[in-house]
Amino acid sequence: MELYNGKDKFFGRRFNEVVEKLSDQKTFGDMFHISRHDIPMPSLDDLKEIIELLRSVLFPGYFRNSEIHSEIVGYYTGAKLDRIYRGLCEQIKRGFCFSCPDVTDGVCIDCENKSRIITEQFIEKLPEIRRLLALDAKAAFIGDPAAQSVSETIFCYPSILAMTYHRIAHELYKLQVPLIPRIISEMAHSKTGIDIHPGATIGEYFFIDHGTGTVIGETCVIGKNVRIYQGVTLGAKSFPLDEEGNPIKNIPRHPLLEDDVIIYSGATVLGRITIGKGSEIGGNVWLTDSIPPKTKVMQPKPPVTIITDGE
Amino acid sequence: MELYNGKDKFFGRRFNEVVEKLSDQKTFGDMFHISRHDIPMPSLDDLKEIIELLRSVLFPGYFRNSEIHSEIVGYYTGAKLDRIYRGLCEQIKRGFCFSCPDVTDGVCIDCENKSRIITEQFIEKLPEIRRLLALDAKAAFIGDPAAQSVSETIFCYPSILAMTYHRIAHELYKLQVPLIPRIISEMAHSKTGIDIHPGATIGEYFFIDHGTGTVIGETCVIGKNVRIYQGVTLGAKSFPLDEEGNPIKNIPRHPLLEDDVIIYSGATVLGRITIGKGSEIGGNVWLTDSIPPKTKVMQPKPPVTIITDGE
Amino acid sequence: MELYNGKDKFFGRRFNEVVEKLSDQKTFGDMFHISRHDIPMPSLDDLKEIIELLRSVLFPGYFRNSEIHSEIVGYYTGAKLDRIYRGLCEQIKRGFCFSCPDVTDGVCIDCENKSRIITEQFIEKLPEIRRLLALDAKAAFIGDPAAQSVSETIFCYPSILAMTYHRIAHELYKLQVPLIPRIISEMAHSKTGIDIHPGATIGEYFFIDHGTGTVIGETCVIGKNVRIYQGVTLGAKSFPLDEEGNPIKNIPRHPLLEDDVIIYSGATVLGRITIGKGSEIGGNVWLTDSIPPKTKVMQPKPPVTIITDGE
Amino acid sequence: MELYNGKDKFFGRRFNEVVEKLSDQKTFGDMFHISRHDIPMPSLDDLKEIIELLRSVLFPGYFRNSEIHSEIVGYYTGAKLDRIYRGLCEQIKRGFCFSCPDVTDGVCIDCENKSRIITEQFIEKLPEIRRLLALDAKAAFIGDPAAQSVSETIFCYPSILAMTYHRIAHELYKLQVPLIPRIISEMAHSKTGIDIHPGATIGEYFFIDHGTGTVIGETCVIGKNVRIYQGVTLGAKSFPLDEEGNPIKNIPRHPLLEDDVIIYSGATVLGRITIGKGSEIGGNVWLTDSIPPKTKVMQPKPPVTIITDGE
Amino acid sequence: MELYNGKDKFFGRRFNEVVEKLSDQKTFGDMFHISRHDIPMPSLDDLKEIIELLRSVLFPGYFRNSEIHSEIVGYYTGAKLDRIYRGLCEQIKRGFCFSCPDVTDGVCIDCENKSRIITEQFIEKLPEIRRLLALDAKAAFIGDPAAQSVSETIFCYPSILAMTYHRIAHELYKLQVPLIPRIISEMAHSKTGIDIHPGATIGEYFFIDHGTGTVIGETCVIGKNVRIYQGVTLGAKSFPLDEEGNPIKNIPRHPLLEDDVIIYSGATVLGRITIGKGSEIGGNVWLTDSIPPKTKVMQPKPPVTIITDGE
Amino acid sequence: MELYNGKDKFFGRRFNEVVEKLSDQKTFGDMFHISRHDIPMPSLDDLKEIIELLRSVLFPGYFRNSEIHSEIVGYYTGAKLDRIYRGLCEQIKRGFCFSCPDVTDGVCIDCENKSRIITEQFIEKLPEIRRLLALDAKAAFIGDPAAQSVSETIFCYPSILAMTYHRIAHELYKLQVPLIPRIISEMAHSKTGIDIHPGATIGEYFFIDHGTGTVIGETCVIGKNVRIYQGVTLGAKSFPLDEEGNPIKNIPRHPLLEDDVIIYSGATVLGRITIGKGSEIGGNVWLTDSIPPKTKVMQPKPPVTIITDGE
Repeated sequence: MELYNGKDKFFGRRFNEVVEKLSDQKTFGDMFHISRHDIPMPSLDDLKEIIELLRSVLFPGYFRNSEIHSEIVGYYTGAKLDRIYRGLCEQIKRGFCFSCPDVTDGVCIDCENKSRIITEQFIEKLPEIRRLLALDAKAAFIGDPAAQSVSETIFCYPSILAMTYHRIAHELYKLQVPLIPRIISEMAHSKTGIDIHPGATIGEYFFIDHGTGTVIGETCVIGKNVRIYQGVTLGAKSFPLDEEGNPIKNIPRHPLLEDDVIIYSGATVLGRITIGKGSEIGGNVWLTDSIPPKTKVMQPKPPVTIITDGE
Repeated sequence: MELYNGKDKFFGRRFNEVVEKLSDQKTFGDMFHISRHDIPMPSLDDLKEIIELLRSVLFPGYFRNSEIHSEIVGYYTGAKLDRIYRGLCEQIKRGFCFSCPDVTDGVCIDCENKSRIITEQFIEKLPEIRRLLALDAKAAFIGDPAAQSVSETIFCYPSILAMTYHRIAHELYKLQVPLIPRIISEMAHSKTGIDIHPGATIGEYFFIDHGTGTVIGETCVIGKNVRIYQGVTLGAKSFPLDEEGNPIKNIPRHPLLEDDVIIYSGATVLGRITIGKGSEIGGNVWLTDSIPPKTKVMQPKPPVTIITDGE
Repeated sequence: MELYNGKDKFFGRRFNEVVEKLSDQKTFGDMFHISRHDIPMPSLDDLKEIIELLRSVLFPGYFRNSEIHSEIVGYYTGAKLDRIYRGLCEQIKRGFCFSCPDVTDGVCIDCENKSRIITEQFIEKLPEIRRLLALDAKAAFIGDPAAQSVSETIFCYPSILAMTYHRIAHELYKLQVPLIPRIISEMAHSKTGIDIHPGATIGEYFFIDHGTGTVIGETCVIGKNVRIYQGVTLGAKSFPLDEEGNPIKNIPRHPLLEDDVIIYSGATVLGRITIGKGSEIGGNVWLTDSIPPKTKVMQPKPPVTIITDGE
Repeated sequence: MELYNGKDKFFGRRFNEVVEKLSDQKTFGDMFHISRHDIPMPSLDDLKEIIELLRSVLFPGYFRNSEIHSEIVGYYTGAKLDRIYRGLCEQIKRGFCFSCPDVTDGVCIDCENKSRIITEQFIEKLPEIRRLLALDAKAAFIGDPAAQSVSETIFCYPSILAMTYHRIAHELYKLQVPLIPRIISEMAHSKTGIDIHPGATIGEYFFIDHGTGTVIGETCVIGKNVRIYQGVTLGAKSFPLDEEGNPIKNIPRHPLLEDDVIIYSGATVLGRITIGKGSEIGGNVWLTDSIPPKTKVMQPKPPVTIITDGE
Repeated sequence: MELYNGKDKFFGRRFNEVVEKLSDQKTFGDMFHISRHDIPMPSLDDLKEIIELLRSVLFPGYFRNSEIHSEIVGYYTGAKLDRIYRGLCEQIKRGFCFSCPDVTDGVCIDCENKSRIITEQFIEKLPEIRRLLALDAKAAFIGDPAAQSVSETIFCYPSILAMTYHRIAHELYKLQVPLIPRIISEMAHSKTGIDIHPGATIGEYFFIDHGTGTVIGETCVIGKNVRIYQGVTLGAKSFPLDEEGNPIKNIPRHPLLEDDVIIYSGATVLGRITIGKGSEIGGNVWLTDSIPPKTKVMQPKPPVTIITDGE
Repeated sequence: MELYNGKDKFFGRRFNEVVEKLSDQKTFGDMFHISRHDIPMPSLDDLKEIIELLRSVLFPGYFRNSEIHSEIVGYYTGAKLDRIYRGLCEQIKRGFCFSCPDVTDGVCIDCENKSRIITEQFIEKLPEIRRLLALDAKAAFIGDPAAQSVSETIFCYPSILAMTYHRIAHELYKLQVPLIPRIISEMAHSKTGIDIHPGATIGEYFFIDHGTGTVIGETCVIGKNVRIYQGVTLGAKSFPLDEEGNPIKNIPRHPLLEDDVIIYSGATVLGRITIGKGSEIGGNVWLTDSIPPKTKVMQPKPPVTIITDGE
């Protein structure tokens, strides 16, 4: 009964060979990210903290320091916004440096400046983001009989969480911040199973019930008062490739949903088609053609088989 | 090459305006949660800790202090239950204060008392909760050929995690605790993609394989020995609105599943219908009518197309 | 208005009874895990840390210490590999002890030795794992028009995260490590909603877009250049039971996908069938029969209903 | 070579006996603190956090959020003061409950109310506390040739740290808060080796250089512009006992130092004596009698011995 | 205005040279600790946690879980003792491995076994340790007029903290555990400035007021009811060297203090001398000869100088 | 029995007044640190981490990753040195910005560049720092009969801790880094009670036994093989003031100790005097004059008083 003494043999030539292979630059390619401007990758932890601060500013009294009262809320809002300003500015800068064409090692005044200006613009959008989220919370309350109050939807509905992340990410997307919006939307995706591309345009009073598996593509445009359920895909049917076989970017390829549309669970709606105002798409439907307003699309009833004892 | 000096301009009038708008009570409405009884919102971190303690008490030797042995287990169980008592009591009180009609700022003896009594009742239910979870673990082992042992299902199957959260949340739901059960079920939803409303009644030997995207609605009643798969929806078909356009609460609107039912992945079962004992619902089926016992429901075979070279 | 004084009554007989029931060994059965060799259960936190270290070694410059540069990368790789060696070796040992037939309390030289040998073999596989992940990242870039760069897919696509976890777990599975591979795949499942059994064999250039709800079963064999979408199930149709009613383990029961296959969202492919080279399965399709190469399978178009005012 | 199997023998009777003895109430006496009003002991971690917040409010830009700028400082001050209010109020309440004569288990409105009123009074003293600390920082800069700037003394001199803690603790002491002031002064003692009883009255422009081992007793009264060094004791000579042999509390028993006094390292000054204005006490002196103003007290020169080779 | 580009030059030859020198084994000597039995150094963090657990078991209701009540205290005591057993056993093993003559890499059953046996013996000493600490707390209350209650001394007096650490360390020292007792005494030293060697034998009712700078040497023997103050040294006068110039270990070289001795601040008592029962040593005294019982030793009064204007 | 409702009255005018006073710039003066170059204050947490990394590089196998073995030590050394480089460079930059005469808000290339160059120079001094610390560890082992091994002194002696911090701080002091060396020396002071100014020059084989309260001033010069004890002060006698009453900086004002000097506990040595080679200063001595080599200075024996019964 003796302990395997291979460790000494392993550490040495065998171990060093693995280190060498994994550190060999020729085999790296895109696997090795060389930081530009000596700036690290965006920090997921810091972004998470920033989003949490934003949530506590957008919905005061719900998250963190939840004993907040009205005489004092202004102080907290100001202090948190300053922290958001600093934190977000740094992350946006990292987003720019990630893809900056200037590859020198050192301070990049351009990335620095752009990130400051954009952060300021973003912060000035916050009151509008709150207005939209307030309407989303009302839509959640009205759209789910199990909801006890608007407050409950704000505090624990995945739809509100996903929309908070999305409306923040979408604003940054419109300000042409690279990478960061995508990271934010993946955070919401991981937490809720709801995958909304930051490019998607979504109107007032939007609600996703349950939401797991729901996908909303980059060029979707969704009207007001739309409600969708878990497992709904608003996707692209196919996409053209360029001469090198890479997909051509930025082509409108996802559905347009007009106001008052409802799409039930598991439905798949693909391509640049229009779902007319007030239409309903039944569960598990696969749809690739436009439909006029006030239309209902349903899966046919499935056949039924009786299991006999002999089976 | 100079650094953008807008910061000084931004901090001042522009910044203060955003703070003011975000702190303006008139525009708040439900967005600003005013704490009742000076009690903060329930703490997600504390609830997570409580659930983890509950898991380690329900499945001794699996989680935390996993070197535990039989001579010592009683000490740990007692100490953990005391911590659970204190922690849960506090969170339940916060749940009550969240929606208490008494809005004064100060100590609310009523919320305090109710939360103590309910916590005691809940703790006395734990042995029964464990009995049910032991059967769920057996069901998981029998229901999945990939499972190597019952222990493995306890330690890493999402179904057991979701059911542990659910059986806890359901007990609190029956004790009429507001908000907390819903938070617990959303925690499980976020971790596993399985969304079980705390109101759902679920019998012995229940197993959900894979589980992502599965939804079980508030008024579902599920018998013994039922097995369902990922992406299954047990939902409501539609819901009546009251005169103000809000959905009427607490109406039975979700399916009843009798014993020994199996529902395969992606099936959608909607409305207050009954799935008879021993029936099977095939994958991706959309079902809104009751079916008798021992019935099989299947999606028809899809058409097949050969892709030709010219395409 | 007095505080409920039941606490004193509760702590005492009532409380002690609950403790006793929850600690009673007769009722435990599999609920009480008795640690073998006095070794605790695998640590999820430590495994998470190990995987994060592996990610930073496989994709240098992306995660942790992301300011890393080429002169220094070898030092980091070596130091991290040593930490991975130690950490993984410990977790693998715990995996072995978890199911070791030797139940004595004390040091198990056999579990200790096996875990060292396997860890060394695993570490020598890392360069190959990186080669495969590099191709997966390219597949993601080519497969998604919304992707801006290969780097972006490495940093924030759930597909790359899930495949990193899978290719690690699969290697450990092939080395016959118990439990640990399954834990790793459940970690990825929880984060991404993608549930790949560690036993599944997956070829080069694999990409899962969005991915929530996708399930890939234990005995799947997937060729090169395959792309699948969210909600796709590659599952078993049914499974034979042994004489005691337990499912028979290790029977090939999941699909074979040849090269260049695409499967769209929500499709369910069940049983030991073969999907021929270059075939496409449409969304929401339910498929249980083999199909030849270059075949397209689509759901039929659903019926459309016009909603009239009177409805 | 076998592992000691005593564990099984130890856990059982032997272990249980230790548990029993350590839990036996009869042997407890003061060793077992029974919490009054179901309120836990003051939290050292929370108090540390509160003091850190106070430091960042008293010296803006030095500690935490040190990038703070003047347009924004008011927001931070307000938000931090609110957090200080809540945190300190809770700790003061715990201090009162610690020694409250009402031993019932439940809410103690009296402790609650007193802690709120005192917290408010304390917060209104903060501007005065800052004024004093600003003068202490100047005294440190003037009193130490090694100091490069006033800012440096604020950021890293133990004297300023100790005086910040003391001036806070002394204010709470004057407001008759039990226990908490003592805890705060022990925190400073542990960090700096400077032990100032919260009861000591200390005038403007006070500086302790190095400070380790310096002790300032409860009833000391120190004038303006006093400087003392490490290892100085301002203590009690002896103390009368009551009939039960316990020391009689609250008798003035420590020195009075008039303005402009300097006491060098290691000097011991004991009893209710007066050190006259402008006097200097040399190092290692042991002094138990009052001295008039402008007096110098020095240890006599020690004898000198030549060590010869033969030693 | 350009950024220094030396980094590229530094990382490369210059950097590698430093790495090489710092990793060169020939220059290491004792600087490079080679772990025996593949066991790491004792963990300061884990030891700190163990001591904290011990404090909460010795003084229930004061530290951690301070809401503990008498019905429940046994559960906590048992669970904590089990955690202490495991944690301490591991650290003691590390202490043995640190200096084990068997240098093989692998499991050392001897170190493992000794650590288990000693841990069990230590745990059985805990009731006696508590008895002694209870008397120390009483001595603190009686010895300091500023103390409000025995409870206050337990909760915040450095003397009780130092004695808790010492009485634990001393018990381990007597059980011949290497290294660990010394680490524990240095922890107390760092927190309180009180440096008691774990070898020192200290009787009942011991109290050190203030304590910063107090030193009690390895072979001291202190009777009952002794009180000492800050800055007191109970040290060795000189120590004989062996032939290689190293000090000879384990020779009794520190003072013996009989019962009822008081030593005031800054006194230095050196060598194997006896301080007779009931004697008092005044502050700043330097003493190297034995004194009989009931003796007072005082520093002579220092000379006094009047500072004249002309100075 | 009603809850004090003053909170509403307090938050409002009274609270706002305090905020205003504490945020009023006119009363700030040096109390409000305005960050230059938008760079925050040095981070104590980061510096602590850097020093810990340095300790683990200087004494491999003792701290952190203590299972390190010789085949692998180079990888760790390289990776840690890179982290030290980045971390220290940032903190040194903050030190420069803290006192930079250029007050603009933005990037300061000068501070950035200086900090890089100095960090590189510092890192190249590390092998020499290790050489000195190895000798200090030997001196500790030889100087203390209680030490069991050189390793024990490295792992837990406050003298080695203090000297590690000092030799690092002194190197940075010589490289003219502002603020940071002082912070480092205060960290050691807080942990050990040993207060060595970073400016002090200390030769090989230096040992401080126990150390609490020992002070070594800025312009001290200490030879080889010197040993001092707790409570020893090597200080300035007095210091000349400039015309504004501020002390004149940088004047040599502390003692010179030649080789082989021993100073016993509590001795105070003041002013620019020389203690000749091989001299010994007895405990509690107060010395302000130079002494020749091989001299012994002792406190006279104190008078002894017999306590009579009648007292």
